[in-house]
Amino acid sequence: MKKLWAAKKQGSTEPVIWDFLTGKDAVLDNIFLPYDITGTQGHAAALVKARIITRAEEQRIRKALNTLREKARNGKIRVQAGDEDCHTVIEMYLTKNLGDLGKKIHTGRSRNDQALTMIRLYMRDQSKRLAKNTNQLKNVLAGLAQKYKSVPMPGYSHAQKAMPITVGQYFSSFVEALTDDLVLLKAISGIWDQSPLGSAAGFGLPIKWPRQIAARALGFPCIQNNPIYCQASRGKFERMFIFCLEMISQTLGRLSADMVLFTMQEFRFFSLPDNFTTGSSLMPHKKNYDLFEMTRAVRASLTAAGLETDLYGFNLISGYHRDLQRTKEPLVRTVEDTAQLIKVLTSALEHIEINTNNLTRAISPEMYSTAETMKLAASGIPFRKAYQTVKERLGKNSGTPP
Amino acid sequence: MKKLWAAKKQGSTEPVIWDFLTGKDAVLDNIFLPYDITGTQGHAAALVKARIITRAEEQRIRKALNTLREKARNGKIRVQAGDEDCHTVIEMYLTKNLGDLGKKIHTGRSRNDQALTMIRLYMRDQSKRLAKNTNQLKNVLAGLAQKYKSVPMPGYSHAQKAMPITVGQYFSSFVEALTDDLVLLKAISGIWDQSPLGSAAGFGLPIKWPRQIAARALGFPCIQNNPIYCQASRGKFERMFIFCLEMISQTLGRLSADMVLFTMQEFRFFSLPDNFTTGSSLMPHKKNYDLFEMTRAVRASLTAAGLETDLYGFNLISGYHRDLQRTKEPLVRTVEDTAQLIKVLTSALEHIEINTNNLTRAISPEMYSTAETMKLAASGIPFRKAYQTVKERLGKNSGTPP
Amino acid sequence: MKKLWAAKKQGSTEPVIWDFLTGKDAVLDNIFLPYDITGTQGHAAALVKARIITRAEEQRIRKALNTLREKARNGKIRVQAGDEDCHTVIEMYLTKNLGDLGKKIHTGRSRNDQALTMIRLYMRDQSKRLAKNTNQLKNVLAGLAQKYKSVPMPGYSHAQKAMPITVGQYFSSFVEALTDDLVLLKAISGIWDQSPLGSAAGFGLPIKWPRQIAARALGFPCIQNNPIYCQASRGKFERMFIFCLEMISQTLGRLSADMVLFTMQEFRFFSLPDNFTTGSSLMPHKKNYDLFEMTRAVRASLTAAGLETDLYGFNLISGYHRDLQRTKEPLVRTVEDTAQLIKVLTSALEHIEINTNNLTRAISPEMYSTAETMKLAASGIPFRKAYQTVKERLGKNSGTPP
Amino acid sequence: MKKLWAAKKQGSTEPVIWDFLTGKDAVLDNIFLPYDITGTQGHAAALVKARIITRAEEQRIRKALNTLREKARNGKIRVQAGDEDCHTVIEMYLTKNLGDLGKKIHTGRSRNDQALTMIRLYMRDQSKRLAKNTNQLKNVLAGLAQKYKSVPMPGYSHAQKAMPITVGQYFSSFVEALTDDLVLLKAISGIWDQSPLGSAAGFGLPIKWPRQIAARALGFPCIQNNPIYCQASRGKFERMFIFCLEMISQTLGRLSADMVLFTMQEFRFFSLPDNFTTGSSLMPHKKNYDLFEMTRAVRASLTAAGLETDLYGFNLISGYHRDLQRTKEPLVRTVEDTAQLIKVLTSALEHIEINTNNLTRAISPEMYSTAETMKLAASGIPFRKAYQTVKERLGKNSGTPP
Repeated sequence: MKKLWAAKKQGSTEPVIWDFLTGKDAVLDNIFLPYDITGTQGHAAALVKARIITRAEEQRIRKALNTLREKARNGKIRVQAGDEDCHTVIEMYLTKNLGDLGKKIHTGRSRNDQALTMIRLYMRDQSKRLAKNTNQLKNVLAGLAQKYKSVPMPGYSHAQKAMPITVGQYFSSFVEALTDDLVLLKAISGIWDQSPLGSAAGFGLPIKWPRQIAARALGFPCIQNNPIYCQASRGKFERMFIFCLEMISQTLGRLSADMVLFTMQEFRFFSLPDNFTTGSSLMPHKKNYDLFEMTRAVRASLTAAGLETDLYGFNLISGYHRDLQRTKEPLVRTVEDTAQLIKVLTSALEHIEINTNNLTRAISPEMYSTAETMKLAASGIPFRKAYQTVKERLGKNSGTPP
Repeated sequence: MKKLWAAKKQGSTEPVIWDFLTGKDAVLDNIFLPYDITGTQGHAAALVKARIITRAEEQRIRKALNTLREKARNGKIRVQAGDEDCHTVIEMYLTKNLGDLGKKIHTGRSRNDQALTMIRLYMRDQSKRLAKNTNQLKNVLAGLAQKYKSVPMPGYSHAQKAMPITVGQYFSSFVEALTDDLVLLKAISGIWDQSPLGSAAGFGLPIKWPRQIAARALGFPCIQNNPIYCQASRGKFERMFIFCLEMISQTLGRLSADMVLFTMQEFRFFSLPDNFTTGSSLMPHKKNYDLFEMTRAVRASLTAAGLETDLYGFNLISGYHRDLQRTKEPLVRTVEDTAQLIKVLTSALEHIEINTNNLTRAISPEMYSTAETMKLAASGIPFRKAYQTVKERLGKNSGTPP
Repeated sequence: MKKLWAAKKQGSTEPVIWDFLTGKDAVLDNIFLPYDITGTQGHAAALVKARIITRAEEQRIRKALNTLREKARNGKIRVQAGDEDCHTVIEMYLTKNLGDLGKKIHTGRSRNDQALTMIRLYMRDQSKRLAKNTNQLKNVLAGLAQKYKSVPMPGYSHAQKAMPITVGQYFSSFVEALTDDLVLLKAISGIWDQSPLGSAAGFGLPIKWPRQIAARALGFPCIQNNPIYCQASRGKFERMFIFCLEMISQTLGRLSADMVLFTMQEFRFFSLPDNFTTGSSLMPHKKNYDLFEMTRAVRASLTAAGLETDLYGFNLISGYHRDLQRTKEPLVRTVEDTAQLIKVLTSALEHIEINTNNLTRAISPEMYSTAETMKLAASGIPFRKAYQTVKERLGKNSGTPP
Repeated sequence: MKKLWAAKKQGSTEPVIWDFLTGKDAVLDNIFLPYDITGTQGHAAALVKARIITRAEEQRIRKALNTLREKARNGKIRVQAGDEDCHTVIEMYLTKNLGDLGKKIHTGRSRNDQALTMIRLYMRDQSKRLAKNTNQLKNVLAGLAQKYKSVPMPGYSHAQKAMPITVGQYFSSFVEALTDDLVLLKAISGIWDQSPLGSAAGFGLPIKWPRQIAARALGFPCIQNNPIYCQASRGKFERMFIFCLEMISQTLGRLSADMVLFTMQEFRFFSLPDNFTTGSSLMPHKKNYDLFEMTRAVRASLTAAGLETDLYGFNLISGYHRDLQRTKEPLVRTVEDTAQLIKVLTSALEHIEINTNNLTRAISPEMYSTAETMKLAASGIPFRKAYQTVKERLGKNSGTPP
């Protein structure tokens, strides 16, 4: 494909260099292409206001881009290894189909604000998708909490038996954690959901530009004013977004860690049907809960991806650097990992077996020592005295299950 | 000092073990002590409602704690290596001064929700302090932006001269970035500013408890409902808070990186008076801008501290683990680093010299190529054609300073 | 394909679960397949000694595996989404082609020691490849150092002009750094290059097993004795290996950071031909050194991948966990990133232009202040006095380029 | 104290700036002071050869420095908040006591190579200390392995009962892991144990310098040749050293994670005497194994400190940057954390109770399924068939403890 930003003598570029520079864009940009198309449609609206194109021309561009989106969806057009990126694919497509009109599309924008825009549209879309899926998971958790609200369960602190809780309380704790995680996701979107279009290469435009038009067309609540800051938020806003997903993976990672423990033979509070587990190639008796190990592991990926995103811009000066191109990869990886994590856990929890007998049996008498102490305290004995009284009564058995 | 939570035969504990378990609490808990005192006063209010103590007793406790706060402020009472922690110091102080009434203070709470409470009060306080300082820095930056709004400055992308900006736009970009950072700080405080008091050891209390009273007394907008989730948010909420500070350090780190570059002899866009710089022990001619290197470096500390906080709870099951005690250290370190970062940069920017001549001279003719292209595009020539025209005109000189 | 380790009713496993559990193995295991084949050939040698198969049967297995390796190389056989992993592909292939003999191949091994083996063979191979490529890069650097050994260049500390060096010294510094990096790579291979075969699932085998035979057949200098430690080194040895590559990327990242700076218009000490650079889609005059930005960025990827590898096993107990399966991905990513980094930099440095005039002109008089001081010191004046003398002479101009 | 490297008008430096620039050096440099003294004595030997001072003068310097070392040990001289750093303390001390001779000590060196030297001497010393302590811990572990070599213990994979092992094998696995960790420590010291003295500020010296003399005097096996690389290894060599400690903490972190699990009431394979455990302030029955939680947590600190060290130099150009000063803090923190970790675990394992009954009882019949399969395989039945036979026999009970 023809190049738009290769410097000169592009034909002679050594393949090893070209491959390196485009990096994983040939794959990743297919994910971003639909968002870039939408962003371009928003930009076209501004071009009308700026009197670069007419309203009728905008309609032709919009229509052509709709067709392109459709072709991309059907796999008829794909960003490929030889292409520069999805931005070039769009301009070339328009030029091929609309002639000189296509050559007007890049007026007043740079690939910089174009990329910023498509990434934010992507994050907005994925944000909604992940929130929806998280809500479904919350429903499953809330259902379990309701159904088993009276089933007792040992509460552990320092991994030692502490006080009785209920299965209802247990699953509810994750419902509340996820609620906070979604509040975070929404709160942070309030920061990154600003329109960068019109910041161009990070220095704004040498002419007056109707930034508000494109922002409105694309559903951005506001424009991000300073063009230098627009550029500086590349990487920063992705980092914020990934941070929210990290928090979700932390919540679900803890749930998974619990499940790995509580499905051990020594506990078997919970179990899964055979078709959710695996065996061993060597040990015929094994029934493994790989599923919960794998859901636990997602947090590691996301934490590393968050750091990676951060590091690309570490200690760099203002202005765009190609290093930041690489932030697309951990962003997409993070979104897909999180989506899969939520889906898999939802499915597993829909099929989880709650072993009421094992749970009930696990409550040992000494776990009521706090209740006993509190009862004494409520009767007027100073708490610390009551505590000592109960502790001495437990005597030598303290800490040992009877 | 007498121990409250050492298991048994505490006198015989080997010193190496004791030192290890208390860790840095002997130092850190002096920072948290005032917040723990306030938290205890809030808890005392709940004790009245729960009929454990009378209103008059609450007043005696409140007064005693005010005195303790005062003594801690004056350094007359300090958490020391031999103590367990600040929680023990408080209960022991009350018991020593109020007798049996002191022994009632721990009714209905654990060191777990006590620690959660004091940490959130600490974060609330530090949040305000850092926001205030950040606003002062913003004012200094806005002042510079206003004063030098018409001074030209080269904008760089890929570290190459790109388009002209102004010193005003440049400093404004950091004002806007910090504004977003403060929005983030506030948005996230909306999540962690919930009262954990009454969650006790992470399993709630075996009797009905007036959680709302303590929450109100301490200014928490709401209670954090599920006690298991209260416990699970230890580490999580600190992580969120640190993340906000990371974002501030990212903004100020970029500013610092710019300053390191722009004070080089090859640029000298900006400079600092001698008393803000250092020399070399070997090279008599050196004038070093260590200050900006050190402000740049804070981001590294904070990023690592954020990770550290995250890692303490990594892959652990629900319920408190002593690992989480160690989160206090990166939290305090982060707050102090950020406070110093803001203060130092504010001071430096109040004294910065803007070298208008060097800035103006640095604008080279080819930086107007985009303006030229846009002008052609505005006149009706399709942008891509205009771009090619200008590019060819620049000819061999493309990319080379004249 | 038939399954070997799926628990039961495997046909009914929900696709979302299956996809999640196999993860990226369908892609990654094609990279590991040849090493797994080789490992299996080594294992077959042990089977002879253990009297499970005859020497003649071993020959049939070896031959069949050679054919499989060939087919894998030609893409005629590939691990696919429906398969369990490369281990299953091998056993199924042997069983299909050799009948009951194929069913004997897994005697005395688990997928655990099988995976450990193939990963180490992979690391050994990649280690050699990367060392070879690094040596080529060292040669290019040494060539530059030799060719420009007398060209002066300003040395910077605190990013300020410090003392004169030469281009020769400059490039030599990276030759020496890479030499240390290769020493590290070799030293660390001395740790991970131990045979884990015979550790089976991490608990050894219930019968005596000729571990030495397989180790020798596969060129391992020694066996890794304790089977529990064999398992515990999954993730640990990969981490060590990645750490070495991190060090290479640190060295080359600094070189790249230098190049980004020294190709700026303000320096232009070095430049690249046009076909190694890129332009801008908006600014016609731009010539960008994206290449050095992208080589700088590799360090960020590797640092994150190192952390990721570490995190999968964080806080986990002894014994295999499925979390560790995910370590394969950052390992492969790291190797490929490093290989590309070395190749691209080698190519770039083969074409780099050394701008002698700019380098020479950049040496300013004050950079000789240390030489002057040393001369006085050599003449007998106490150094600190000499330093003060020179400093005063530089007077007001200290730190200012003349 | 008089300043050596403050630029000018140092008296007027604003306190906030001065505090920030010296950072934690006032505390940390007391740890480094003895090593800096030793390094200075080595440098003095080179000064003789370079004819800057006489042999007799060197003796006076050596003696004065011995006295200073003694005073530092007794706390009579301390680096303080007002001082620049330990380097200044040394030169000022010599100048005060030896007059003009003291003013000669800095001839031919910079604080840069001085700091590099003292850090390496510190790492060499700590390396020996930690290796010695690790060997003691290995002895304790080997003693346990020997004493309980025949006590059975369940081996877990995927946290599910897998195959029987012995307590002997279990503890031996950590002996072998630590052996590898010490091999790593030694191998890596082979890289950083090079003399940087004579590299001065990272550009070498303008006169011929007897670098070999100082290297020999300080016991460095070789000099680190290129002065630019000497400087570039600041941070890099510390990173390598910390990496070794990370590996130790990984090994001991896994041991600790095991202990947290195996001291749970559901297992109680191991226990600790009361004076190694703690209780709860609320729950009178609690006996907590905080100790193992705290030893597990050290890995988190070290991983973060490793990253922190790495980040200070991230994306920076060649030459010293003040950012690197901050690497001293995570280095010292890491060393002290590791030392404490080893000491505490050694002490705990010396007192650990092995509960043979619980261990033996935990071996359930299905754990012999692999032995059974191997027996069939050894009798000539193809392994996969034997596996299926045993699996079917286990029937519905597969994966369920009998």
